[in-house]
Amino acid sequence: MATLQQLAELVGGQVQGDPALEIARVYPIDQAGESDITFVANPKYLSKLDQCRASAIIVTPGVEAAGRNLLICANPYLAFAKILTFLQGSRTPAKGVMAGAHVAESASLEEGVTIHPGCIVGEKVQIGAGTTLYPGVVIYDDVVIGSDCLLHAGAIVRENCILHDRVILQPSAVIGSDGFGFAPDGSAYYKIPQVGIVVLEEDVEIGAGSCIDRAALGETRIRRGTKLDNLVQIAHNVEIGEDTVMAAQAGIAGSSKIGRHCTFGGQAAVAGHLTVGDNVMIGGRGGATKNVASNQLLSGVPLIPHKQWLKASISFAKLPEMRKELQRMAKRLEELETQVKED
Amino acid sequence: MATLQQLAELVGGQVQGDPALEIARVYPIDQAGESDITFVANPKYLSKLDQCRASAIIVTPGVEAAGRNLLICANPYLAFAKILTFLQGSRTPAKGVMAGAHVAESASLEEGVTIHPGCIVGEKVQIGAGTTLYPGVVIYDDVVIGSDCLLHAGAIVRENCILHDRVILQPSAVIGSDGFGFAPDGSAYYKIPQVGIVVLEEDVEIGAGSCIDRAALGETRIRRGTKLDNLVQIAHNVEIGEDTVMAAQAGIAGSSKIGRHCTFGGQAAVAGHLTVGDNVMIGGRGGATKNVASNQLLSGVPLIPHKQWLKASISFAKLPEMRKELQRMAKRLEELETQVKED
Amino acid sequence: MATLQQLAELVGGQVQGDPALEIARVYPIDQAGESDITFVANPKYLSKLDQCRASAIIVTPGVEAAGRNLLICANPYLAFAKILTFLQGSRTPAKGVMAGAHVAESASLEEGVTIHPGCIVGEKVQIGAGTTLYPGVVIYDDVVIGSDCLLHAGAIVRENCILHDRVILQPSAVIGSDGFGFAPDGSAYYKIPQVGIVVLEEDVEIGAGSCIDRAALGETRIRRGTKLDNLVQIAHNVEIGEDTVMAAQAGIAGSSKIGRHCTFGGQAAVAGHLTVGDNVMIGGRGGATKNVASNQLLSGVPLIPHKQWLKASISFAKLPEMRKELQRMAKRLEELETQVKED
Repeated sequence: MATLQQLAELVGGQVQGDPALEIARVYPIDQAGESDITFVANPKYLSKLDQCRASAIIVTPGVEAAGRNLLICANPYLAFAKILTFLQGSRTPAKGVMAGAHVAESASLEEGVTIHPGCIVGEKVQIGAGTTLYPGVVIYDDVVIGSDCLLHAGAIVRENCILHDRVILQPSAVIGSDGFGFAPDGSAYYKIPQVGIVVLEEDVEIGAGSCIDRAALGETRIRRGTKLDNLVQIAHNVEIGEDTVMAAQAGIAGSSKIGRHCTFGGQAAVAGHLTVGDNVMIGGRGGATKNVASNQLLSGVPLIPHKQWLKASISFAKLPEMRKELQRMAKRLEELETQVKED
Repeated sequence: MATLQQLAELVGGQVQGDPALEIARVYPIDQAGESDITFVANPKYLSKLDQCRASAIIVTPGVEAAGRNLLICANPYLAFAKILTFLQGSRTPAKGVMAGAHVAESASLEEGVTIHPGCIVGEKVQIGAGTTLYPGVVIYDDVVIGSDCLLHAGAIVRENCILHDRVILQPSAVIGSDGFGFAPDGSAYYKIPQVGIVVLEEDVEIGAGSCIDRAALGETRIRRGTKLDNLVQIAHNVEIGEDTVMAAQAGIAGSSKIGRHCTFGGQAAVAGHLTVGDNVMIGGRGGATKNVASNQLLSGVPLIPHKQWLKASISFAKLPEMRKELQRMAKRLEELETQVKED
Repeated sequence: MATLQQLAELVGGQVQGDPALEIARVYPIDQAGESDITFVANPKYLSKLDQCRASAIIVTPGVEAAGRNLLICANPYLAFAKILTFLQGSRTPAKGVMAGAHVAESASLEEGVTIHPGCIVGEKVQIGAGTTLYPGVVIYDDVVIGSDCLLHAGAIVRENCILHDRVILQPSAVIGSDGFGFAPDGSAYYKIPQVGIVVLEEDVEIGAGSCIDRAALGETRIRRGTKLDNLVQIAHNVEIGEDTVMAAQAGIAGSSKIGRHCTFGGQAAVAGHLTVGDNVMIGGRGGATKNVASNQLLSGVPLIPHKQWLKASISFAKLPEMRKELQRMAKRLEELETQVKED
């Protein structure tokens, strides 16, 4: 519970209406009711305000809604997220190493750590203050984990990898699996030991079931603030810049370097040994087959400007028709040529 | 073991031959032998009957096979599945909470539950009669699981999610991971708490490694009888209708609504905030980029009728040739124009 | 530590320079220093030799590098891998069944097995000499595992499956999940019991999060030496030949047979019930929709020769332009026809 005024202060906004109004919950505009606050981030949903039964609404400056309690701020979506976080309350108190967890004696845990049953923490592991390991998390030897990290059930971090502060691993995320490296030896393959590590910097989040391979030599590094969705594949020796986001099932092949503040759609891919610049947006299922310069919005394989790809994709359906038209025209042309020659 | 007559009664079919014949096993037509029953669901395999050594064969009405023991029924493939289930025998007896499992005292288990070693069951979890948790399953707090569910090893169900009766989770399926929601806050991203849940209705099956994200607010819901293959991604706030099937590595982006009785091929995808109707078939790797009406068979990106896509895909290979032909024709046309002008 | 001479003997190469030089580490050419050995497998990196500070360099015969310590051999990349393996040292000594592991009494373990805490090993499981199960591995009943296998954390092997010697499972790999088989029964689906198994032959490696479904009847088989990357899907009853490699997120649909010594790029796919020959290379995201003969390099959907696909993909971007050109030409042609008729 919080008053509307408290929430306005939290997000740096202003109240129009009753500042003492008690708010219990954030809820969607068409389901919200008594004691709920909702938000309108997109002007096209303003028409829903009339029928909305929420006690208060987060809106941008200039929105008219006579008789309603409004929280006015520049970015209602961000305000919604911050209020949701605030109302959710603080984390539950730390529980220490719970019965049924196995933590090596040589591991060192800072204050406020919670390690649930079924977790296995290896030799010489270091875990920072306030970090929580949900049930069934496995940490191999010599891993270093920062403060206030959240590792969900079934997440696995292999030997020597490093997680900075506030890293979140969704369930079954795998950090530090072997890179896919084999040297041809006649017709068979010889496994190249993958002796490098993975580094996840501050505020990185890795989605459920996503796999970040360790480097063959050196490191695979994902920089501060980057967020990967579920079932994403990051191969060995990849580097990803700060504040980049990748949607589910995207895949980055070995040794490629991705810039900062990029956005990749679902199932997008980057081939190996490439460089992708900063602020690059790749549409869903787009695939980079050569280096990509910064500040572009691209789609398709090979990547082309997104608008051009949209047009070409629509033309694709007309291909059979185009072939027939070509054949018809060739025939007409031939007839004309004959006729002109005869004249 | 069962007699041919018993099996005929099980599947609502008729015996032609020896009703007392003992059948021990269902086996493929080209490997079956003594005491085996096999089936011919596709007429193109009828020619294999001559060399088939099975003791009995499940066929459709009208199939001629002199001197053979036949089980005649309308749907041999369904009969095969039912007989296989029957001969496999009933489930092993319940084992209760086995040593090495951790079940919170506040959890409530109905009769006939089996919880294998290495499982972790959280506070206030409810588990229905006859449900089995294989080793290493993790159930977070406040989850509700119905009767006769089967959760395979490594499956994870996060807080507050709901599984109805007879839900099957294959190994490492993840239910209730955080949706991929972040609000831009300057150049960095602010995590939007994902406080909704996932509901899996009766008879839903989720494949190995598949991830079903919880809703940001409200619920992600998969309706009765829907089956998802392995490594499928279902984003937050998605709804999927009844009896829909999706092959491996398909992905549905946030807030999309999929109808009932749809069939999606492998690696197919649906972009966010879309509606797909009922009885829609999307071919392998097809991708919906806008709303899709019911009762269609579609492929490609953007989706077009499957037959049209097949033709266009074949024409695709001719594109370089078509461009050259266009250039040649342009030249011929120019020559003709000059010539006609001169005349 | 080893002398350069010892390493040369290990890989069947020759020393040029100081055979007694002590080598501690293999390291990348631009980061290597004192006591390091590095390698040049690709002639285009020879220019880096001048600035390289490694104590020794693995090169092919004929490379000139006055005053440097060289290890000369035919395949520097393979030599690098073998030296890396050697310097990494032997595996840690076996630890037996560690506290916190659950192994059924009916299971039989050969000598030198290590089973970490949190592992669950079912009834009548057999595990060969020198095999290691990292924490949280789950082995269902009646599984047979060969010698010197390495099963990483969270790997799951379901009932009756068979792993031959030296199989490696990366974290969270799933072996023997149910195949995706359902028989339509009116509008709903009836689950077809998947009673077959998976066989992984010698030296097979399965990537993190990859899923290998058990056969409906019979077996899914992956033959000797085949390597699958992360998040790969192998459906029921698939067979894959020897020494084939598949990059991440590839998917093979049910009952398809893949030959030996094939190479599939990332996200590549094969539809169901197909046969792919030997020595087939399929480019990233290529998709087989019909049988594929041996000894080809193919891309696209449907598959076409890779070079043709490259050209067609580039032409794709020109499609809107081509359509316009077609329309312009049609108009010019019509005008000409009118003019010629009038003449």
